[in-house]
Amino acid sequence: MRHLWPVIMAGGSGTRFWPASRARWPKQLLALSGERTLLQETRARVAPLAPPERTLVVTHADHAKAVRSQLPELPRGNVLPEAVARNTAACAALAAYTVAEQDPDGLLLLLPSDHEMQDPESWRGIILKGAADAQALDTVLTLGLVPTRPEIGYGYIKTGPLVKNARTPGLRKVAEFVEKPVLERAKRFVASGRYLWNSGVFLVRAGHLVELVREHLTDLARGLEGVFAKRASRRAAELARVYPTLPAVSLDVGIMEKATGLIVAPANVGWSDVGSWSALHEVLPEDAARNIGVGEALHVDSSGCVTYSTDGLIATVGVQDLVIVKTADAVLVCPKDRAQDVRKIVEELKKRGDHGLV
Amino acid sequence: MRHLWPVIMAGGSGTRFWPASRARWPKQLLALSGERTLLQETRARVAPLAPPERTLVVTHADHAKAVRSQLPELPRGNVLPEAVARNTAACAALAAYTVAEQDPDGLLLLLPSDHEMQDPESWRGIILKGAADAQALDTVLTLGLVPTRPEIGYGYIKTGPLVKNARTPGLRKVAEFVEKPVLERAKRFVASGRYLWNSGVFLVRAGHLVELVREHLTDLARGLEGVFAKRASRRAAELARVYPTLPAVSLDVGIMEKATGLIVAPANVGWSDVGSWSALHEVLPEDAARNIGVGEALHVDSSGCVTYSTDGLIATVGVQDLVIVKTADAVLVCPKDRAQDVRKIVEELKKRGDHGLV
Repeated sequence: MRHLWPVIMAGGSGTRFWPASRARWPKQLLALSGERTLLQETRARVAPLAPPERTLVVTHADHAKAVRSQLPELPRGNVLPEAVARNTAACAALAAYTVAEQDPDGLLLLLPSDHEMQDPESWRGIILKGAADAQALDTVLTLGLVPTRPEIGYGYIKTGPLVKNARTPGLRKVAEFVEKPVLERAKRFVASGRYLWNSGVFLVRAGHLVELVREHLTDLARGLEGVFAKRASRRAAELARVYPTLPAVSLDVGIMEKATGLIVAPANVGWSDVGSWSALHEVLPEDAARNIGVGEALHVDSSGCVTYSTDGLIATVGVQDLVIVKTADAVLVCPKDRAQDVRKIVEELKKRGDHGLV
Repeated sequence: MRHLWPVIMAGGSGTRFWPASRARWPKQLLALSGERTLLQETRARVAPLAPPERTLVVTHADHAKAVRSQLPELPRGNVLPEAVARNTAACAALAAYTVAEQDPDGLLLLLPSDHEMQDPESWRGIILKGAADAQALDTVLTLGLVPTRPEIGYGYIKTGPLVKNARTPGLRKVAEFVEKPVLERAKRFVASGRYLWNSGVFLVRAGHLVELVREHLTDLARGLEGVFAKRASRRAAELARVYPTLPAVSLDVGIMEKATGLIVAPANVGWSDVGSWSALHEVLPEDAARNIGVGEALHVDSSGCVTYSTDGLIATVGVQDLVIVKTADAVLVCPKDRAQDVRKIVEELKKRGDHGLV
């Protein structure tokens, strides 16, 4: 079988995990589910599939140092810095050109750096079978997550006919990528059994992705080809110069939704995108009063709370369903159902010019 | 007029202001109402009445250093250390013997170290007139606070007939000290207009208080007289040796309730005993959403909250009527109406043996 090349896309810079996450220390660098950071969890998940030499991380230049220190086993050159955030198409294309030069038949496993999987073994099983199918059919395979609720925060994949003689159970043609739906539509999707959540995970031959970039994002292809035309010692500087000029579009919208012949492997692996503080309930064990937490906590007559402390104790008396986060320089308190509004704090701090805290 | 000798009784070691207050850093040493600590506020309140040389502070030996550093203007010997906490009778008696030796006709102004007064000027006016009346009648004067609600957490003073020709408006005989009442009784007290809250503030001639100690607390008098019989250089060691053997009783119960001929001056001076985190509403200005706080806070869609941060930001989204306290090593979150239960956290930490935090 062809070599697998995991490409961990670690360009995120979300504000939903403030005050633990900061512009210089985004979500993927946090140990939200316990001992290891989400980035380290992601690397551990793909470690049995590929050695460090064939594992790439694409990340903002500001975070490259932290990524390297969290994944010391990776060769330095395997952490590809982005001078500015340019969304996932540029990120995936950079990886594709990088791999295609050494191993054009290598199979890229493109994946987000900040998701959690309760069952990584099953996940790897699907990836391995999917890789065989993607290779046999020479097409793009995406992972579709079996929906567990009518979520309006995710994109969906409408599935088409079953792929015959596939090694992956339930492998189907992709009929269509669907943008985040309104609730009624999401309910119909889930009830129909024909829709999967778009996971952002893709298996595609490096040379094939380069072709897709050339076909669908000409400016992106031209920009990166200019970089790769330079000799190795000049490339880093050239990449930093060119990167801000590249189109900022997602891999899904810029390429995958336009490509044809895609296949989708259904996955039911305890996935969570860990989208906000309240989502920690999906990845951490609860105590008898349904409290969960990372770091020290002491609850008296309190239930359903999420606590996260990077240092020091969080103590509660008589509160329900709150998110409480403590860092050295800030505390956040909000109800779990307002966890998405944490960004309002970050916006307000930016407005005040309080950049030390954002 | 005789000299006034303010005696600030700073022996408290409450747990209701955890995590800001600790065994080694009690409430009176905290800046709960802003810039100055309650101890410093108390000293500032009596500063126009007496110079530092005539101002005493009685405090636990563990806190003497902090007291001296918060009140650097006081002569070192004016901070009297207690080897162990022995309640307020021992504390007041120690001050009485100390002053009586130099100025037996001096008038002690005994007062707690951890209360707040919105109107210190009126308070001083009452003290000065009260001092004149106490001197003229040669009796003990206590300050009675005009009740603003049927509080069950305080003791009351039942007032007797008006004192004729007094300089203090509304000066009356004390009919009786009353222990903390149940709610129905407290309501009757307030409705009757004949009851005042017991403030714990007393004006009494030093020599007179020594006589009262001899009369009502023989063991206390004997213990302290043994100390004061030593020459000055030996006294500190002797006091530390004797102090643990002294009776631990309050000034009110041990002496004042047994004494006769007391008078009481009514006071309406914006008093608060700052009894818990939620009581900060009595001493701090509210914002438009009724939030109050000391230290940095940022509220989004939140109202009625009390925040206290010794360092760093407290940020909230969508919460109501919470107490949130941040110190370097701990965070507390509880509803305002559970603020009294903060002691449960302290008890639990003690049980766990986590003495660094208590």
